[in-house]
Amino acid sequence: MTESMILAGDHLLTMDATNSVIADGALLIEDGRIAAVGKLREIAADNPSAPVKKIADSVLMPGIVNAHAHSGFLRGTAEHLPVWDWLTLHINPMHRVLQPHEAEAASWLCYAESVLGGTTTVVDMWRFMEGSAKAAEAIGNRLVAVPYVGEHPDYNYFDTLDMNEAMIETWHRKAGGRVNVWVGLEHLFYADEAGQRRAVELAKKHGTGFHTHCSEAQIELAEFERRYGKRPMYVLDDLGFFETPLAMIAHGVWLDSAEIEFIAKRRVSVAHNPVSNMKLASGIALVGEMLAAGVAVGIGTDGEKENNNFDMFEEMKVASLLGKLKDLDAAAMDSWQVLRMATITGAKAIGLDAEIGSIEPGKRADIIAVRTDTPRMTPLYGEGPYFNLQHNLVHAVRGSDVAITMIDGQIVVEDGELKTADLGEIIAEVRKVAPGLFARRAAFLAENADGIRQWTD
Amino acid sequence: MTESMILAGDHLLTMDATNSVIADGALLIEDGRIAAVGKLREIAADNPSAPVKKIADSVLMPGIVNAHAHSGFLRGTAEHLPVWDWLTLHINPMHRVLQPHEAEAASWLCYAESVLGGTTTVVDMWRFMEGSAKAAEAIGNRLVAVPYVGEHPDYNYFDTLDMNEAMIETWHRKAGGRVNVWVGLEHLFYADEAGQRRAVELAKKHGTGFHTHCSEAQIELAEFERRYGKRPMYVLDDLGFFETPLAMIAHGVWLDSAEIEFIAKRRVSVAHNPVSNMKLASGIALVGEMLAAGVAVGIGTDGEKENNNFDMFEEMKVASLLGKLKDLDAAAMDSWQVLRMATITGAKAIGLDAEIGSIEPGKRADIIAVRTDTPRMTPLYGEGPYFNLQHNLVHAVRGSDVAITMIDGQIVVEDGELKTADLGEIIAEVRKVAPGLFARRAAFLAENADGIRQWTD
Repeated sequence: MTESMILAGDHLLTMDATNSVIADGALLIEDGRIAAVGKLREIAADNPSAPVKKIADSVLMPGIVNAHAHSGFLRGTAEHLPVWDWLTLHINPMHRVLQPHEAEAASWLCYAESVLGGTTTVVDMWRFMEGSAKAAEAIGNRLVAVPYVGEHPDYNYFDTLDMNEAMIETWHRKAGGRVNVWVGLEHLFYADEAGQRRAVELAKKHGTGFHTHCSEAQIELAEFERRYGKRPMYVLDDLGFFETPLAMIAHGVWLDSAEIEFIAKRRVSVAHNPVSNMKLASGIALVGEMLAAGVAVGIGTDGEKENNNFDMFEEMKVASLLGKLKDLDAAAMDSWQVLRMATITGAKAIGLDAEIGSIEPGKRADIIAVRTDTPRMTPLYGEGPYFNLQHNLVHAVRGSDVAITMIDGQIVVEDGELKTADLGEIIAEVRKVAPGLFARRAAFLAENADGIRQWTD
Repeated sequence: MTESMILAGDHLLTMDATNSVIADGALLIEDGRIAAVGKLREIAADNPSAPVKKIADSVLMPGIVNAHAHSGFLRGTAEHLPVWDWLTLHINPMHRVLQPHEAEAASWLCYAESVLGGTTTVVDMWRFMEGSAKAAEAIGNRLVAVPYVGEHPDYNYFDTLDMNEAMIETWHRKAGGRVNVWVGLEHLFYADEAGQRRAVELAKKHGTGFHTHCSEAQIELAEFERRYGKRPMYVLDDLGFFETPLAMIAHGVWLDSAEIEFIAKRRVSVAHNPVSNMKLASGIALVGEMLAAGVAVGIGTDGEKENNNFDMFEEMKVASLLGKLKDLDAAAMDSWQVLRMATITGAKAIGLDAEIGSIEPGKRADIIAVRTDTPRMTPLYGEGPYFNLQHNLVHAVRGSDVAITMIDGQIVVEDGELKTADLGEIIAEVRKVAPGLFARRAAFLAENADGIRQWTD
């Protein structure tokens, strides 16, 4: 971590309250925080002793927040199935046999891919997350670790709330504050009543967030109706989940307008996963309505098995496209809205908007530089009547166009190369451990044809 | 062009009739054509004098066919508008003031971006296409040049059929056969009756294809009903367009089931543009029905202003996602179907399936190598029960993962770098000429508020 330096680019996208863009912009970084933002000429004149790192042909912007992801390495091996079949045949059997060293290898891969593509913060719901925290500590990304908890006799092969609490005690606010640990539940139905109560209590006790999948697939609605006689958001509220310090719902595809108004008042946030929602044929979330109601909506990639990559630039594009398709309105989901969801609004959705999500004095120096010397960025106008910077970033750029990723003032990726770990070794480790996981899962499935029941059976 | 060489990779995706994949596969290339395909060991033993180029950590596959694109450099400057407003306010005024040197600069940029992302064949509907043909000749891509013709008093600022015929006479089947020229019409309504007749005659006379936009936006249907009392496909048939050697419709979003059966019998092909159809809020084409009926459906990016990039890997992914979303069926539009549309079926859609679209002996050596030493391709199984090569290619890979692009046996891109032209100069030229085009368009719009009428007015 540098003590003091100036980072400069051709354009500086602040993502502040007015989406200011500074031509020939720069920021002063001191001890991992942004100390000043402005024109390079002014920042350099005010800080003559600070070394200047000028990234040629670049846009500087806040690091991207991936509001919902899962580490993993089932990529491409669990395809073409609706969400509940897919869970039954592939995903839950994987969870039954997953071992900690495999889980850790998956997180190294996920975070490496994330930072290479300009994502600086990953909300990761995953297993045995001590390994994930170690991976984030080494790679340098910001992490919201959310254990995949099952606290129910039918789901006793997931992480437990005991493991979740231990993880909070060991890792919450560690790694220089880069690692936070929340309370997670795979789904409300994956906990019995005692488990549900304890999840709420744990989040309150430790002053941390709560995250779960909800209202992803339409078939959930009937089961909520059968069990509780209510739509999902009212059930979560009744059970106390919205009294936790911060509750974020993954997906929320089937929230209706009344639920949206309700969660806006309860300050519940949502992680929107457009690629996953299309790929698993879940549906189209009412993201425009959520934003209009004041819900903090972040954007997430979901996992390697639902997407199948962690490219948040691609995710931004699909968020825009899906928003426009929804009511056949080409003006819906404009590029600024999408950029805000992937940065400052995403940061708000995870309670970190005072620390990250925009380039403003006092915030952590989570900054990326996006190359502009590419066909995808040609032509580029950062000012004037043909201003297209926001549209190019959302619709043209890919994660591979990220030249530099800085987190807490540390350069994690430079010239598109991972600097903090050996990418080849990370890939080699996954290639080494993946066959064992697949083999154990196959053995489990062969021996337990009746062991893969779900609440939908 | 090498006289004889062997190209080898870890996996060779043939896209033959059974989607064969060859582990440690290789192909023998002689004078720009594929002479043999098989295991490297066997190909090398049979051809001991041929030099072997082994691409480490790669999948070899057929070059991608972009079945519908437009050169241009309005990227990101014409956003958030439904298709007809967007045409009126941005696109057609651009066409009124576009000059040949600007059109040529746009094609250099488009083709450079295309080959860098693994696209070897571009169907480009554009203006003043002598410059486009020169760009394709130099860069090395295969090109189906389709002039953007208007032959109507209201659209007399587009290319004319005279220009189209001159282009056919000068460039059709030139550049070693890499450049083909078809007859184009922007839209049926952009030609008067004489123009429509002559377009049909020209395609027949020169034995070439015909391409036009049709059934993109729902509002077209009412206008077809008003003018002709019929749905679009029957009108095009009545006017003789389906008696041309090969007719390909761009978009076809609003074709109904009867029209699909009808065009299948008439051997009309379709270019599907999923990103554009979402971004312009056009709708969802019935691609699954088209394929089931036997229609040759290719995939296209549409233009830089509708997409806003030319990444056919991204386009494949969105084709898959949109197909799954359509009827909320996660099993729809499987990865093999998508890969075929982007290769062999796309080649059939443009009448070149005897020459390109698969890696089979006798075909032109249009081959790409996709990197596998990336997180996006980890883990990768090209054989066995966890076979995921096709899913990774469609859902995880981006165009930036293309290491090598070979066209007609010539290496056009190597290590992700354009070898046949100077990318920096291509970008610089667009940056230089773009402001002039925007200024002339602004001047035109200021002086001709009533000059931008459309058939929809």
